[in-house]
Order: sequence, then C-alpha cells, then structure tokens
Amino acid sequence: MEQFDSLFKIEDIFALWLSTVGLERETMRITEDGDLATTPHPKALGNRSFHPYIQTDFAESQLEFITPPYESSETLINWLSGIHQVAYQVMESDNEYFWPLSTPAYVPEDRDSIKVAQLDNEVERGYRTHLAAYYGKDVQLISGIHYNFQINPEVLKRKQPESMDRVSFMNAIYSKLGRNYLRYRWILTYLMGASPYIADNYATELYGKPHKRMMRSFRQSRYGYQNKADVYVRYDSLEHFIEDLEQAVASGQLSVEKELYRDVRFRRGNPYRELLQKGVSYLEFRNIDLNPFATYGIEQGDIDFIKLFIITLLYLPDVETNEAVDKGNTYNFQTAEADPTDLPIDMDEIRQFLGKMKTLATTLDRNRPQKASLINLIESKEAMIDRPDLTLAGRIIEACPSPSDFLAFGIDLAKDYRELYQDKPYLLHGFEQLELSTQDVLKEALIAGIEFDVVDTTGNLIRLEHDDHVEFVKSANMTSHDTLISYYLMEDKVVTKKLLADVGVRVPAGVSFKNPDEAKAYFPQIEYSAFVIKPKDTNFGLGITIFTERPSQSAYDEALKLAFAEDDTVLVEEFVQGTELRFYVQDGSTRAVVERQPAQVVGDGKHSISELIDIENTNPLRGERHLAPLTYIEKGSAERLQLSEQNLDFDSIPAEGEIVYLRRNSNISTGGVSIDRTDAAHSSYHRIAEHSAEALGANFCGVDIILTDYSQEARFDNYAVIEANFNPMITLHRHPGRGQAHRVGRDVLKQLFPEVAFSTEGHFIG
Amino acid sequence: MEQFDSLFKIEDIFALWLSTVGLERETMRITEDGDLATTPHPKALGNRSFHPYIQTDFAESQLEFITPPYESSETLINWLSGIHQVAYQVMESDNEYFWPLSTPAYVPEDRDSIKVAQLDNEVERGYRTHLAAYYGKDVQLISGIHYNFQINPEVLKRKQPESMDRVSFMNAIYSKLGRNYLRYRWILTYLMGASPYIADNYATELYGKPHKRMMRSFRQSRYGYQNKADVYVRYDSLEHFIEDLEQAVASGQLSVEKELYRDVRFRRGNPYRELLQKGVSYLEFRNIDLNPFATYGIEQGDIDFIKLFIITLLYLPDVETNEAVDKGNTYNFQTAEADPTDLPIDMDEIRQFLGKMKTLATTLDRNRPQKASLINLIESKEAMIDRPDLTLAGRIIEACPSPSDFLAFGIDLAKDYRELYQDKPYLLHGFEQLELSTQDVLKEALIAGIEFDVVDTTGNLIRLEHDDHVEFVKSANMTSHDTLISYYLMEDKVVTKKLLADVGVRVPAGVSFKNPDEAKAYFPQIEYSAFVIKPKDTNFGLGITIFTERPSQSAYDEALKLAFAEDDTVLVEEFVQGTELRFYVQDGSTRAVVERQPAQVVGDGKHSISELIDIENTNPLRGERHLAPLTYIEKGSAERLQLSEQNLDFDSIPAEGEIVYLRRNSNISTGGVSIDRTDAAHSSYHRIAEHSAEALGANFCGVDIILTDYSQEARFDNYAVIEANFNPMITLHRHPGRGQAHRVGRDVLKQLFPEVAFSTEGHFIG
Repeated sequence: MEQFDSLFKIEDIFALWLSTVGLERETMRITEDGDLATTPHPKALGNRSFHPYIQTDFAESQLEFITPPYESSETLINWLSGIHQVAYQVMESDNEYFWPLSTPAYVPEDRDSIKVAQLDNEVERGYRTHLAAYYGKDVQLISGIHYNFQINPEVLKRKQPESMDRVSFMNAIYSKLGRNYLRYRWILTYLMGASPYIADNYATELYGKPHKRMMRSFRQSRYGYQNKADVYVRYDSLEHFIEDLEQAVASGQLSVEKELYRDVRFRRGNPYRELLQKGVSYLEFRNIDLNPFATYGIEQGDIDFIKLFIITLLYLPDVETNEAVDKGNTYNFQTAEADPTDLPIDMDEIRQFLGKMKTLATTLDRNRPQKASLINLIESKEAMIDRPDLTLAGRIIEACPSPSDFLAFGIDLAKDYRELYQDKPYLLHGFEQLELSTQDVLKEALIAGIEFDVVDTTGNLIRLEHDDHVEFVKSANMTSHDTLISYYLMEDKVVTKKLLADVGVRVPAGVSFKNPDEAKAYFPQIEYSAFVIKPKDTNFGLGITIFTERPSQSAYDEALKLAFAEDDTVLVEEFVQGTELRFYVQDGSTRAVVERQPAQVVGDGKHSISELIDIENTNPLRGERHLAPLTYIEKGSAERLQLSEQNLDFDSIPAEGEIVYLRRNSNISTGGVSIDRTDAAHSSYHRIAEHSAEALGANFCGVDIILTDYSQEARFDNYAVIEANFNPMITLHRHPGRGQAHRVGRDVLKQLFPEVAFSTEGHFIG
Repeated sequence: MEQFDSLFKIEDIFALWLSTVGLERETMRITEDGDLATTPHPKALGNRSFHPYIQTDFAESQLEFITPPYESSETLINWLSGIHQVAYQVMESDNEYFWPLSTPAYVPEDRDSIKVAQLDNEVERGYRTHLAAYYGKDVQLISGIHYNFQINPEVLKRKQPESMDRVSFMNAIYSKLGRNYLRYRWILTYLMGASPYIADNYATELYGKPHKRMMRSFRQSRYGYQNKADVYVRYDSLEHFIEDLEQAVASGQLSVEKELYRDVRFRRGNPYRELLQKGVSYLEFRNIDLNPFATYGIEQGDIDFIKLFIITLLYLPDVETNEAVDKGNTYNFQTAEADPTDLPIDMDEIRQFLGKMKTLATTLDRNRPQKASLINLIESKEAMIDRPDLTLAGRIIEACPSPSDFLAFGIDLAKDYRELYQDKPYLLHGFEQLELSTQDVLKEALIAGIEFDVVDTTGNLIRLEHDDHVEFVKSANMTSHDTLISYYLMEDKVVTKKLLADVGVRVPAGVSFKNPDEAKAYFPQIEYSAFVIKPKDTNFGLGITIFTERPSQSAYDEALKLAFAEDDTVLVEEFVQGTELRFYVQDGSTRAVVERQPAQVVGDGKHSISELIDIENTNPLRGERHLAPLTYIEKGSAERLQLSEQNLDFDSIPAEGEIVYLRRNSNISTGGVSIDRTDAAHSSYHRIAEHSAEALGANFCGVDIILTDYSQEARFDNYAVIEANFNPMITLHRHPGRGQAHRVGRDVLKQLFPEVAFSTEGHFIG
C-alpha cells in the first residue's frame, strides 16, 4: 500500500484537522469507601439500551459516557462535562462517586457482588456472563477512553484515486491507519499510560495476579483486557483480518467477533465482513487510560495530541506487514509493564515521531492564532522523553508514592470532581454560552436520550433528533408546533387584545392614537376612572403614566406628551389593579403559574437590610443577570430610593418576618423573585389562559393576567389579560425562587417527540 | 315607549357614533348604448349565492355590491371602491358599464329580454318569476342603496333598564327607531332623492305609466317598489307589525314575508316572528337613491349624514302611533312625486330636524379634530332647504335639463366612472395603504368570496373567514401553514446554508469568522478561485468584496477590514457566477420563477436613452417605489455612472434592439424588471427549490438559485442555492415586467381554504 505514502501533502493538514473525534469514557460508580455502588443504573435515563449518551458497559455500576463526533476538542470537552454533570444529577444515591482511574483500587472479595449490567437483551446479558466466567470479573472493572476517529470525508473524496472504488479506497486507507497505529501506539502508552496501581486482590482468569505491584499501565498490560495468546489476527489487509477473526469464532477461540480485544476496531460493519461491501467508516482506538488529573478523564490538549498523532500516522509510510504490527504490540506490552520511571523503549523512534508531528503542528498553528498552540503541546510531550516523571504514570506515582494509598488518592480526586460536577446545577455544563432555558431543554434531551446539536449558539438554535425524526428549537420553546402567524398575532399587543376581546376574554379597555390632537380630544370619552397612558412599544417603562383616579385635562395632556415622545402610537388603556400572574400554556393546557415579586428581604429582627441582602445573595439560585435563575440583589441607587420611600436605609433592622421590598418592579433581572402559584391559582384562570392561547393559535404561550385574588374564581370584573407572549421564559417555572418547580423544558420535548418513552421513574436534581 | 325619550344623554353621542353601517349598492350592467348587458353574471366569482360581496339582485344583469359593517364612512367608501373595481375586473365583456342612477333610462320593448337572475335555488328563481308577473319587469330595473344600521351594542348593554330583558329592550328601541325613520325620512328624500327621470316606456303593473315625466324621485314614488295599496302593516309595535305581515301572507296579499316593500326592515329574523325570541339585530333602510355624482353611488359625507340622521331619531321622542307613520309615508310620497324644484313640504320640520342634528354634530366635531366637519356637512344640507336646485334631484335636472338626454347623461358618467374603476388595476382600490402583495391577496379573497378584514394596516395583517374557518395572514404569505421555527431557520443565512448542505443541496462553500486574525490566517486554505467576502448581515451591499480570481494576501486582508467594519461576523464564501433566479415554492411545489434584470431600455436607433427611459416609464406597471409592480427608471447619478462605464450618456442613441443597462443591481425598487421563467427554467431547478424548502420545513419559500444556464439540467457544479426567503414577494410573479403572470396570491388562499370552490371559469384582468 505504499501508493498512499505520499497521498497527503502538507497543505492537506488543514482539511485533515477537520476530521472528527467521538469519545467514550467509562467509569465505575463507587461509594465513599471505594466500594462498588450497589444502586441500579439511574432510572431517570429510561431504557439504557437506546441511550445515545449514557450507558452501562459490563457491570451494572460501570457507566459509559458517549459524545457525538466533533471536529473541535473544546466541543468534546464541553460534551463530556455536560454528560458528567447530568449523570450525577440523575444518580439514585447521594453517596456515589465516579472512580477517576482506569484500574480499580478495590475489588470485593465476594466476586458475586459485582453485578453484570441488567440489560433487557437476553443475548447481551448472556454474553456478559460468559465474559465474567472466561476472563474473570476483575478485568471487567477496568475503565478507559475509547477514541473514535473519522478522516474528514471531504479529503478522502478528493484523494480517491481514479483506479479505485470508494470502498476499496476507504478500506485501504483505514487499514493502513490501523496498522500504523498498532505499530506506534506504544508512544501514547509511554506518554499517557496512567494505571500504575491496581487492587491487591486483583487477578484475571488468564494471567492470575499481577507479577508486579506497580507498572506504567496495568490496563494495557497482560492483566488488562486481553484474549488468550493463541488468538492471532493479521492486520496486513482487511481481508486477512476478517478471515482470521471468522476462523477464531468458528474454532471457538472467541464466542463472538466483538470478543476480540484489540486496540483498533474497524467500525460500521457487523459482522466485520460487511466492511468489504460498505467500507470502513471510522476507527475506534481503545487503548487510552483515564487521566486521573483530568476532571472528565482526558485533557482537552490530549484530545488534540492524539488527533495529531493519528493524522501523523496517515503521513507516515505504511508499516505494511504483520511483523511490524507484532513489533508494535510487543513494544506496547513492554512499555505498559515497564516501571513508570523507565525511559522509553526506543528513544529515537519517539523523538522522530514527535518531530514529524511538530512539522504538521507548525503549519496548523500558523492558521489558528486564537487557539492553544499545538507546538507547545508537543514540546511538553517531548520533554517527557527523558523525564519519565513528567509522564502521566510518573506524575501519579509522585502524587501517590505507595500502592496502599491508591484508594485514598482516587477517592480524594473523585470527591473534588463531584463538587465540580455539582456546581451550578441549573446550568448544563459545557453549554453555558446558551440561554438558561435552552440549557434546560438540552439537559432534558440528554436525560431522555434525544440526540441534539447546537446549530447556532448566539441564536439559541438547537437541533434535536430521535431515530429519523428531526426537530429544531429556538430559545427553548419556539418550535414547529407554533405557526408563523401566531407569532405576529402575539407580537402586536393591540392585535392580541383585539383577538382576545373577540372571544370574550377580558382585556383592559383602550384605544390607540396616532394623532396627539385626537388623543387629547378623547379625554371626555374616557369611561374608566383608573387608566394608563403608554407608548405602543415601550422599553423600560419609558413614557408610561398611570392615573389611579381621574386626572385633569392638563395632567392628561402632559401624560400624552410624554408617551408620544417615545412612539408614534399611544394607547389610552384601562388600568386594572391587582396581582400579575404568568400562566405558562403549552398545547392547550396550563403547565405552570408564577407570581413575580420585587426584590425583597425578610427581616429577622437582628440583621440589617444590607446584611439580609448579603445573606439572600448566597442563595445558590442567585447569580449574575441572565446567568442564573435569580439575580443578585444590588445595593444601588434604585434600592436606596425604594428604601427611603419607606423611611428605611440599608442599615435599618427590620422586625422578624417583616418583608422589605427593595424595588418597585418585579423583574427577575433586578433581583425579583418568582413564586410558584400553579396549584394556588383558581382553575378558572388556568382556563382563561388556555382560552387566550387558543384564540391566538398559540401552542406555547405565556399569558399575563392581572387579578384581584388568585384564589377566587374569575368573574368579568376581577381580572384582565394584559399580554400574551410567544416565547415564554421557562426558567421562571423551572427554578422558581419559592414553591414547586416544573419541568416545562421536558414538556417541550414530550410534545416534539411523542414517540419517545420518557422515564417516569428515578429522580433528577438540577 | 316614551320611557326612551330621554334614554340617551348628549355624552352618549360618542358611543352612538361608533354604531356600524353596512351598505348595499345595486346597479344595472349596461352596454355602451344603454342596453341591458346580456352577458351572464361574472363566472370568475364562482357561485353567487354564497358570495358575501358581489351578488345579483332581481335581474341577471343587476349587480348588488355589499360591504361588511363598519363604524367609519371612510372604510365603507374604501370597500365600495374595491368592490366596484373588482366587479369590473371580472366582467365577461369589455363593453359594459354600471348605470349610475336608480331609474333606468332605457327599458327594452321586448320585456322578455330582461332575464331573471339565473340562481341555483329553484324557489328563489320562482319567486322572481312571480314578482316579474305581479309587479312587472320594469320595476325590477330600479336600483338603490340599502343602508344597514346597528346601534353600538355596548351602548345598548349600558342603557338596558333593569326592568326589561335584552330582547324586549332591543325590539323596543329598534321599533321606535323604525317608526321615527318612517315618519321623518321624507327629509332625506327631499335632500337626496335622485331619480327625476325614467325611461319613456317605463310602466308598472300596479300603477301603469308615470303621470309625469319628471319628479324628485321616481324610485320612491308610487312607480317604484310598492306593494298594492291594500297591504297595510302597523308599526306601533313589533308584535303588531308581525301579526299584520303574517296576515298579509296568509290572505295571499303577499307571496312571502320579504315581498313587503317598506323602507325599514327589521333584520335577523326569518320568519319575522323569530325576532320576538332573538331580538332585532339591526335595521335596513332601503330608501336611498343612487347619487349619480358619486363614483360609488353615495358620497362619504352622505354616509355620515344619514348616520347622524338615524342617531338623531334615537334622541327624538317616539312618534309612537301608526297615524304618525302614515303621515310620514304620505309626506315621503308627496316629496318624491314633487317637482325637483319644489320647496320642502314642511319647512319648519326640516329646519328643526337639522337643528337637532347640529347640536349632536357640534359635540362630535369637538372630538374629531382630524375628520371632516359634520357641522359643515349639515350646513350644506340646510342651505338646500330654500334652494331646491342644490338638492341632488335639483342638480341632476340642472346638469341634464331634458328627459330625452337622460340616457346620454348617465352613459357619460358611467364611462367616466369606468375609467376610474380601471385605473391602476394591480391595486385593490381603497386598500392602497397596504403592501401591493397584501392588496393582491385581498383582491383574490374578494373575487373568491372569502370574507376579510384588515386587522392592522401598517403590519399588513389581515383576517380571512369562510363560514367559521378563520385564518390570519401577514404580508401576503406568512400564515398558519408555516412554523415559527422555519422562520428562524431561514432568517439566519448561515443556518440556512448548513441545513441545505446537509440534504445535499449545493450552496456556496464558505466559512464564517468572528475574529479578523483567524480570517486572515484562513487565506492559504481557500480552495476556490472566485470568492466573496461579506458581512454576515449586510444592507445595500456595504462591505462586500468580490474576487473573481485569487487575490494577494494584502488585497484579501483589505477586503476583510471592509467587511468587519460592517458586522462582527464575516463570511468568506465561494463566488458562484451565473444568472440569479427566484423560485417561488408553496406547499412543496414551485409555483413561479422569475429572473430579475437591472433597469434597462432597448434601443430603436432613433430615440436617445433619456427619451427611451421616458417611454419605458409610461409602462402602466411602473410607478413610485413600492406603490407599483415596477418602479420608474430614474435619471440619477447611479444611472449616469453606469452609462459612463459603457461610454454612454443620456443623450446617446442606442442601435435598434440594443439593450442598455442603467443599473448594476437588479432590484425592482431601482427600476429593475422581473421576467417570468417558470416554464423556461429546467424542471431540475424546480425540484432543487422544492427540496430546499422541504429541508427548511418551509411552506412558503422564495429560493434564490444562481445558475449557469437555466435551460440545462442541474448538475453538481452548475448552480448554487444562495438564499431562502420566508416571505417571498408575490408581486414579482403576479405582475412580472415580461412574460406570464401567476396568481400566486390566489394560491395562498387555495391552501388556506381548501374547502372553498375557487372558480375555474371566467377571467380576471388586474
């Protein structure tokens, strides 16, 4: 296959760098003591067999986190961080941690307590039982990273020789890449092998107890996932590989094809023979140890490093022969079983390889001025060549010099990471650039196993997919279930009122004027004593005057002047007094109701208002404006003014139970608080909100109702609908300041994907 | 019923003025010679029996135009003008006019040639045949205005005495109003009677040939619509009225209840007895003659005048008795049969009545500073009290002193009006404040008999209704058939491209940058030789640079600088050369295709470019920007520059057939021209446009495709979709500068109202 040795030119590196990577990270769920967790797989995730992101591997307590493929390592880390967070939020017990290393520090003496994953599929359960008997259960406690790599298809399209068909070309390229990887992967093992310790009582059926207490990587040694030595498959061609594999299964050396444990898997053929028709689609590299110093098991830089390592293999000559592959396997075993302090087995080879990588990195770096330098990354690896203490295994034994401290070392890290995973539970970690509400919908999708992608971050536009059903969602609840026209009906407040009045919903009476003279002349005709004068479109309340009793003509004229200064259309509208409630309607039913109240503190007879604000600001729901469900209460001039109107200042000490308001307006963004009133509001208002949404043809609708008393049934004169919003905030209901939370983000998904079985079991904190 | 005599206070006039009026205007279709038109009712209107706006009355050639009820006389006139225009545009023959007077100037000697309306309903046809036999066909040639009046229901709600139920109150109020109207309507007849002549050979079965050749109003005389004298109904109560009417039918004096010809009809009961349960809903006043000096049969001022006349009747004491009604009838006959030069029959009564009206008008005027003065209107009528020559009948005989000129007088007016009706056929007269495209949809609705209302003029938001099916439409094709999310998918051009590329539609390759350094560094990676650098959102082409061959890095950097000055996101995009075509897709199929070309003239070897522009600007499709399908070509600096680039100026005389472009851009708003390419464009592009719309989930979609040659099948490299628009202009296709027009506005309605049988017959010019 030397025909490919000069297939890629240096300038192809840009396109090759756009190749995609998908990661799988395994981890054991453990208790505080290091015991395997005995709780079941989180029930909130529904049926694990179909979950795209969170599955179990061998053992019931072994989680497998799966990212979709992306070009960017930053995106992959974001996904890992989101999945880790969610996995924690749906955990069945409070006392659980993710073991951060590839090898177990503790194996229960009673091996029967290691439960095989409770999968629905009987064949899969049977297979796992066979593995446990044949290889031993201990080896199944080992976790790692699987690194899936697909060469940018655009490059392959361009490089395909005329003499070859697509499938032959793909298979030839990918089998070259597989061979070269097997030949040189020992370099990765040297640099990133990270399982120098293992539980004392660990043993495998094939190789017994380890012959050493410490090595660079137990996981990649003979004590990791290994078939019997007599299983041999050739890698010099895909045809040979498949032939040998089929022979091994036919002879009973392997129970099924996937029982072949090798560090390279050709993907998208089952059985493998299909690859000869379909072509290899991507490779799965299975030899990466978990990095205990990385919050999510792998550092972003290492994702890039491995990617460039793989791309470099494409530029290198094809090693071609089985002998070369065998040599690579031997090198890798030796490297894995060496002491973490040993130097690399072949200093020249590693130095030359990193040198080749640097050539590519130099070119790439030139065109990514804003990104972390790849050259620096490789140089940091180069430094490890004669400094084994800088390698991952070296760093672990430095941090934890004695095998007997291994358990404590891992648990300490696990506890640190758990704190990170549990930080700001209302966010979806890794997706913080999106609005809170979109993060919430994505988190619900992640839990429900609906695949998603962010199409446009600043636009909060996401794509959701389940099987072949695709839905787009903008800003959490703008979907295919609302019509374009309903948007315009709600956007224009005058139109909204007209349509609601038409169906008998009470709205504040009012008239709009484009002409100041006409508006003035209208004064004698005003029939309501309390009314408001406002510009048609208003921001921040500018130009609004409220009259609670009938004003003089001159006061009225003055108010008109203020309003006309803001807009060319001015409304004279009945002023309805009362409490304003937001009704969140979806698909014809009111899902949640909140009252918004101004920023406030409750006195305790001891603390000053200033201190009470500080205390309230420690509420974990509070944060910077728009970045948290509630906003920090400020001590600014607006608050000072509001206090002084009550003859108070920041040093006043309110009596116990006394509520002190710090703002006149109830916006969440100025410290206001939302209070759930879903059950408290009389059902007649629920019906009015639903009726309003229907009149506007709205599927998602936030109906604002002013009412005298939400516990009393609606009559004609005790309420008015003042607004209907086409993109109602879901955070108000998802994370109310007080009262019951409602998973309205999940409701969005339920309507979009009625075919998905949303779990009704388990729980979810976040 | 004197209990109501002081029911209304002076301040109630504002609310009473919000009462609604609906108009019906009848007219005979005639030929240039004054003959009755022999063509059928316009087939394009579909089944007339259900048409809300354009029907036939008695004769096949008698049109009846019906407006919906509105508060404002301006709106009513607008509706009349739209209906008149449309009725002309669907006429079956070019040689037809609307006879502008109430009485015919010509009655065919062969009465059989007066065809009864060819209605589907057999009973209705039979009824008309009976009328023709009983009253004679001549009387059926008489036309007029019916004035429907509903008291503002809000006022009635407020005024309803506690002692009365709603139905009794409505019936009491409306029967008082009916009585009073009958008592005083002679005043209207004096002022506005307008049928002083009638055809020589005109005769009725009941009263024979008129005894005079000229009177104030033949239509309201005994020679108009009159029952036999022995038909007598009491008006002193609704119960009496119904009793007498039923008796007249039972005794055979009348064939059916509606054969009772009286100037007041109680509406919304059939049979009338239903009114006793349901309550009168409004009154129909049937005594208004057509005003031949008014383009649409009635002046806007007279709509207001009659309204105030009616409201005044509500303020006046109830005349109560049948004797008073009889007196009113007598007065009215006498007024109608008087000479047009005679003074009013009761000078005091008319003076007092108008005086009372002035009191109300004074109050109203104070609060309508922007509207025409009602006081002036009444004063102009007051002037007629001792100047019969100023009344309508007086003016007619002044303009046409001899009965023998009556036919010519009417035809001259009819011709003038036809010219007005035919002006700017692409508009919907009376609705010119809306966008052209919305006018077109409304016009199609008017033709199809779908009821409509303008909800918001500046927003181009309309409401359509057929039976109980309601649809809202904004800007002609934003409807309930598009989803809110598809709007956002099309709004973001980057997202659009992404989604189209995903489904295999070719879009210009490209990358977007937020960072100038990254954009600069990208230069070596650009793989296409021709490309464009542009701000993500651009207006008027600012910041765009097109490279048709590979530039230097410094030229590239300079172009980036220009683009980043306009937007914080800049696209580097493949530049696809070719012709740009707009594909208008609806509901999965391409309905029309146009090419837009820059403003241009074609030489004739004689005229200068300046003269050719003048000639082109006489094209009736051209007008002011956005107010006509095409825009006047200017002779400004942009045009001068474009000419000078071709070494031409405005005085150059291009050779015959030579096309001279006056602009670089092809926007219609700068004189560009749209050319229909629906059939010319290869069907493969139709499919690509449809596929693109589908990928975006768009029902209405304007897909812009750049292509090398529209007659050649699409391959991967000869086209690119550059944009998809969620609100594609329909005027481009409806009124292309050249080629086939497509009624895409009608297609909108067809999809919204699949249950409506759109006529496939007849034709439509406009």
